[in-house]
Amino acid sequence: MRPGRPPVVDPARLPRAVTVYEVGPRDGLQNEASALPTAVKRAFVEDLAAAGLRWVEATSFVHPRWVPQLADAAELLAGLARAPDARYPVLVPNEKGLDRALAAGVDAVAVFAAATDGFSQRNQNAPVAEVMAGLRPVVERARAAGLWVRGYLSVCWGCPVDGAVAPAQVAALARDLVGLGVDAVSLGDTVGVATPGGVERVLDAVAVHAAPERLALHMHDTRGAALANCFAGLLWGVTTFDASAGGLGGCPYAPGASGNLDTCDLVHLLDGLGVATGVDVEAVRRAATRLVPYLGRPLPGRYSRAGAFRPAPG
Amino acid sequence: MRPGRPPVVDPARLPRAVTVYEVGPRDGLQNEASALPTAVKRAFVEDLAAAGLRWVEATSFVHPRWVPQLADAAELLAGLARAPDARYPVLVPNEKGLDRALAAGVDAVAVFAAATDGFSQRNQNAPVAEVMAGLRPVVERARAAGLWVRGYLSVCWGCPVDGAVAPAQVAALARDLVGLGVDAVSLGDTVGVATPGGVERVLDAVAVHAAPERLALHMHDTRGAALANCFAGLLWGVTTFDASAGGLGGCPYAPGASGNLDTCDLVHLLDGLGVATGVDVEAVRRAATRLVPYLGRPLPGRYSRAGAFRPAPG
Repeated sequence: MRPGRPPVVDPARLPRAVTVYEVGPRDGLQNEASALPTAVKRAFVEDLAAAGLRWVEATSFVHPRWVPQLADAAELLAGLARAPDARYPVLVPNEKGLDRALAAGVDAVAVFAAATDGFSQRNQNAPVAEVMAGLRPVVERARAAGLWVRGYLSVCWGCPVDGAVAPAQVAALARDLVGLGVDAVSLGDTVGVATPGGVERVLDAVAVHAAPERLALHMHDTRGAALANCFAGLLWGVTTFDASAGGLGGCPYAPGASGNLDTCDLVHLLDGLGVATGVDVEAVRRAATRLVPYLGRPLPGRYSRAGAFRPAPG
Repeated sequence: MRPGRPPVVDPARLPRAVTVYEVGPRDGLQNEASALPTAVKRAFVEDLAAAGLRWVEATSFVHPRWVPQLADAAELLAGLARAPDARYPVLVPNEKGLDRALAAGVDAVAVFAAATDGFSQRNQNAPVAEVMAGLRPVVERARAAGLWVRGYLSVCWGCPVDGAVAPAQVAALARDLVGLGVDAVSLGDTVGVATPGGVERVLDAVAVHAAPERLALHMHDTRGAALANCFAGLLWGVTTFDASAGGLGGCPYAPGASGNLDTCDLVHLLDGLGVATGVDVEAVRRAATRLVPYLGRPLPGRYSRAGAFRPAPG
C-alpha cells in the first residue's frame, strides 16, 4: 500500500466468491429488432449455464406486443435443457405474465418497478405506487407457489424523465419491494450515469431496509463507469452483480442507454481480483459470439470484442 | 457506509483535484490510417486546451516512416495558438527527435520505453537496457534545455510478447527513468489487461522509487476495466491520469489493444466523485466529434458516443 494509507484492494475486504446474474437472454435480447430463432436463443441460455453461470434470466412473459422478440418464452422454456444447479428466472410484469410463467413450470421470477414516476409512467404507463400495488398479488402468488422472486428497481441513479433521483427515494422503494416479499432487489443504473460515490450513497440508504446479501447491482456501461461502480459495490459488500453476455442490450425507453455491462468484462475484473465466480469468461464470449450472425453487428461488449489476453511470443 | 465497514469513497481519501493528461492528438491519432489535415489536428489540440485540459500531448517527433500521420509535427506546432496556462508536450524517441522538437520550440517532451524486452524489441527494435541507455542523452539534453520531461513505460501489466510482468520489473525501470532525470513517469496498461489489485501492486512497487505525485496512470479500456483501475489508482493516491479524447487510438503493436480510455469517460467519473479537473466534458466531446468526418467511423469512447445525461421530461 502507499505509505501511510490503508490498502485499496484489501483481500480481507473482498468476498471470496460472488454471484454473476446473467441477463443477456432477456434484458440483452429484448430490444433486438431482428427476431432470433427460438432454438438459437435457447442454445444461448444453455451455453451460458454451461459456462458456469448459475443464474440465467432466460426470457420474459411481458406481453408480446411490447417485447415481440421474447414472444416465444413458453416454447423456449419447454425445450430447455436445464443444468441441475442453475436457476432460470423469467421476467413477469403482472398476474397474467405470472400465470403464463407458472404454466411454463418456472421456479423463479423477476418483477420490475421504476424508482421514479416519470420513468414508470413512460415504461409501465402508471405511477410507481400503482405499479407496486399491482405487484403485491404477483409476488404473493409467486411466493405461495414456492418461487424465488427478484424485484428490479430501474433508474436508481438518474432518470431520463425526472432527472436526479434521491437515494432516500430508492431506499423507500427497495423497502416496499422487500415488504412485498421479494427475495432479492436489483438496483439498476438504467441510463448509465452513476459513479462510485453515488453507488455507495444508494447502497447505504437501501441497506437500512434490505440486507446486503439480498442486493444486486445492475450497472450500465453507457459512459464507461460500470466496472468502477461494480468495484465500489464489491468493496462495499455487494455479492451479486448483473451483466449481459456480449454487452447485449440496453433500455428502449432511455435514449443513449445502450450499454449493458458485458458479462465478460465483469468476470475479467473479478478473475483479476481473485474473487471466484465459477464462470469461464471465454465460454461466455463464445456463447455471445454465436449470436453475431443473427444480430447483424459486432457485439458491443469490450472484452467480447477484444478477447482474452493471449501473449504471442516471437 | 455499510454498517461495520469503512466507507469505500472516503472524501478524506480523495484528492480535491487531479490532472488529466490528454494524449488524443498524439497517442490517439498516431494509428489512424487516413491522413488528417494539419489544420484539423491543430484545431483539435486547440479545442482540447480550450476545454480546460492543461496538458495536451500535441504530436510526435518519431520518424515519419513509423508514424506518417504525425509527419507534420513541426508544421502543426508552428501555427498552434497556445493557451497561456497549458503545456503541449511532444513525444521524442531519440536525440534526432529531440533536435526536431527543440527546433520547433517545445517546452516539454515525453520519452518512452517498454517494461519488457519482448515488447521493446518489437516496438523499438532493441532490448529495454539499450533503449534506456539511448534515452540518457535525450533526457539530459532536454533537462539542460529547461524542458519538462515525462517518461512512458508501456506494458506494465502484461506484454503481448512476454506475457505477465512482475511489479518489481516495472519498479526497477521506473527507478531508472527517475534516475535519468524525468519529471514524471506514466505507467501504461498497453494491452488493457490490468485489474485494480494489479494496479495497486505495481503502484506499491514503483512508489519505493518515485514519489506518487510524479506518477501517472495510462489505462486502456480494452476489456472495460480502465475506470475501475483509475478509481483504484485515485484511492491509492495517483493524481495524474492519461486519457484520449473520444477514446481515439490504441497500440499498433498489441493486437486487440484498441481502447484508449476516453477522456470524457474519465472526466465523467471524476466529476461524479467531486474531484476537480477543470475540464468541460462536453467541450472535449465536441472536440473529438469534429474529427469524425475525417476518421470515417464513430468515436470508440463510451461517453463520446452516448453524450451527456440530459433528462427530457414529458
